[in-house]
Amino acid sequence: MKNQVKIFDTTLRDGEQVPGCKLDTESKLILAEKLDLLGVDIIEAGFPISSPGDFKSVVEISKIIKNASVCALSRANEKDIDIAAESLKSAKNPRIHTGIGTSEVHIKYKFNSNKDSIIDTAKKSVAHARKYVDDVEFYAEDAGRTENEFLAKVCEEVIKSGATVLNIPDTTGYCLPNEYGDKIKFLINNVNGIENVTVSCHCHNDLGLATANSIHGVLNGARQIECTINGIGERAGNTSLEEVVMILRQHSDLNLDTNINSKLLNETSQKVSELMGMPVQPNKAIVGSNAFAHSSGIHQDGVIKKRETYEIIDPLDVGVDKSSIVLTARSGRAALAFRMKEFGVNLTKNELDEVYDEFLTLADKKKEVTDVDFPIILKNKKIKYG
Amino acid sequence: MKNQVKIFDTTLRDGEQVPGCKLDTESKLILAEKLDLLGVDIIEAGFPISSPGDFKSVVEISKIIKNASVCALSRANEKDIDIAAESLKSAKNPRIHTGIGTSEVHIKYKFNSNKDSIIDTAKKSVAHARKYVDDVEFYAEDAGRTENEFLAKVCEEVIKSGATVLNIPDTTGYCLPNEYGDKIKFLINNVNGIENVTVSCHCHNDLGLATANSIHGVLNGARQIECTINGIGERAGNTSLEEVVMILRQHSDLNLDTNINSKLLNETSQKVSELMGMPVQPNKAIVGSNAFAHSSGIHQDGVIKKRETYEIIDPLDVGVDKSSIVLTARSGRAALAFRMKEFGVNLTKNELDEVYDEFLTLADKKKEVTDVDFPIILKNKKIKYG
Repeated sequence: MKNQVKIFDTTLRDGEQVPGCKLDTESKLILAEKLDLLGVDIIEAGFPISSPGDFKSVVEISKIIKNASVCALSRANEKDIDIAAESLKSAKNPRIHTGIGTSEVHIKYKFNSNKDSIIDTAKKSVAHARKYVDDVEFYAEDAGRTENEFLAKVCEEVIKSGATVLNIPDTTGYCLPNEYGDKIKFLINNVNGIENVTVSCHCHNDLGLATANSIHGVLNGARQIECTINGIGERAGNTSLEEVVMILRQHSDLNLDTNINSKLLNETSQKVSELMGMPVQPNKAIVGSNAFAHSSGIHQDGVIKKRETYEIIDPLDVGVDKSSIVLTARSGRAALAFRMKEFGVNLTKNELDEVYDEFLTLADKKKEVTDVDFPIILKNKKIKYG
Repeated sequence: MKNQVKIFDTTLRDGEQVPGCKLDTESKLILAEKLDLLGVDIIEAGFPISSPGDFKSVVEISKIIKNASVCALSRANEKDIDIAAESLKSAKNPRIHTGIGTSEVHIKYKFNSNKDSIIDTAKKSVAHARKYVDDVEFYAEDAGRTENEFLAKVCEEVIKSGATVLNIPDTTGYCLPNEYGDKIKFLINNVNGIENVTVSCHCHNDLGLATANSIHGVLNGARQIECTINGIGERAGNTSLEEVVMILRQHSDLNLDTNINSKLLNETSQKVSELMGMPVQPNKAIVGSNAFAHSSGIHQDGVIKKRETYEIIDPLDVGVDKSSIVLTARSGRAALAFRMKEFGVNLTKNELDEVYDEFLTLADKKKEVTDVDFPIILKNKKIKYG
């Protein structure tokens, strides 16, 4: 049996912090239902104290979600937690997510505080949240830059106060994969009681390492990944849900898996993009429009002979119809013959040679040669078709 | 003294294989000069045999580049290599890049060949290229899925034939960072003569791991990274130049650095995007328009108190003027006061409380509140300004 990695989706909370991409309650409800269908284990629905609109979104999402836990964010103070608990009243499986910065720079400059006082606040907040719900996640903000010994102490104390999930965020996206993995391993080995809670990875992509860091987290004992569809989020964004899910699925030797129905990844990605008005770049891994598009001759030739030469994921597994052979000046004879055949023309070897030169001249001028260009190419070489 | 990691830029070759993003010779020349100025060590200028236009581009780039080596791609056959050598005739520091697939799936399905014959072709090609130039890079295509023992054998043989650089491509983007790092370490420890050549990482982003894999490659002894501006390339693209460069610079304890002038990263990114007609997604690490934009209240409050609480890179270091505080429904009082002050209005504590409620109501309706909205907010609360 596979070890289960829980997917904590924060598209509607951390993801929604993209400048210019705010979602109204109606859009949030549509996406929350999509996420539940996709199979995420936890939906972080919002940060209720931040605005009346966000409070309302969490209330409404709590009412409709059937499977996933619904989670609300709060800072480490009673008022935030009270409002979060209030917003979750209708949730079948409510979770309160509370926490505080633990790195030196956060303690000194953000809170003008000290370590003892931070631990005290953390403990009180977790205990307060546990008065409302059984499932309380604690985040040690900027854990990525927090020294491991102090982080372990904070974790141990909040577990005693009733935390059920420990979130270890690399808030600024600073860690290297081996470093983040070692941090998780240090906590697993040095925190009393950690075997009774779930350790969670929450990584940011400021250096392009969010996905790798999350994977190195679960390789070292974490069992929850916090992520967003399309990797959206503040600054350079969060860990991409679709990437971590497909990494675990493609590397079955790791013996780790999630509850995600990967066939829904592509349509979920498109819905998030549409409702947020945030386009997905063509070369986005897994869900970009080019993710399964081949344009160079060497690759096209390989894929036509056997898909696995250049594709590690079957496009159907993520809800994409098929891989595409795009004709450009880098394409070879194999690709041109393949596309001509799809177009209905079976070329002889000699015909292909003639047509290929004609094709290359055109391709050097155009970004892409399409079916529309075929009749002209064929006519110039006096090849009949149709 | 730092260990130098060479930056092999393939924006104009592997990057240009993005469907629909072909560059004409004039655009390629503009970008080649930008890349030389940026400080890349090697510019892969094209794949000369693929089309007359690409041949011409390599010829013209070879004429103008003053500092970087200019490299041309070829498959492992004499004709490809002859044409590559011809295109590089004017280059001050020419490099021929030749190679062949070494994984089981490539040998069997792409070449319908066997291991001995692959090694033979590899050796002959490298030796042939060395007749023309002193700098020959060999790529073992699909090295990511090639068993390490056979890969080591191929590497050892091509070194004997005169290869100066060994490129270990994870062609399909399959490897995990620890796995790719272990592969490089295996080669360093098991290939005779490897101490006399440069080992190069060439990673693809199909699972979102290209950057992490390249970094784990250099952590294990590689000293060249093949990458593209904005991470563009076929399918999910290549390793992002800007990401690997800034990772090494931010993690100075690794004692690894590149020749890149990071202050030119942002404008180089914009030029590539413009000439390729390929927009950079807002949340792209380092060079996206949101990379230094903060919208949540907790983060804004921190950044206003001290930038380092939520930023690990000074925007100036990558050529961005300043970080931005974007006002949304997730923003707090600190951000509103900060932006109002920039606007020329110093609010008292009481005024801020009043204006903040007004602001939140508006922000729940709008994606972003801007300076344009300030006069209305202030007028509604009867606060004079200006």
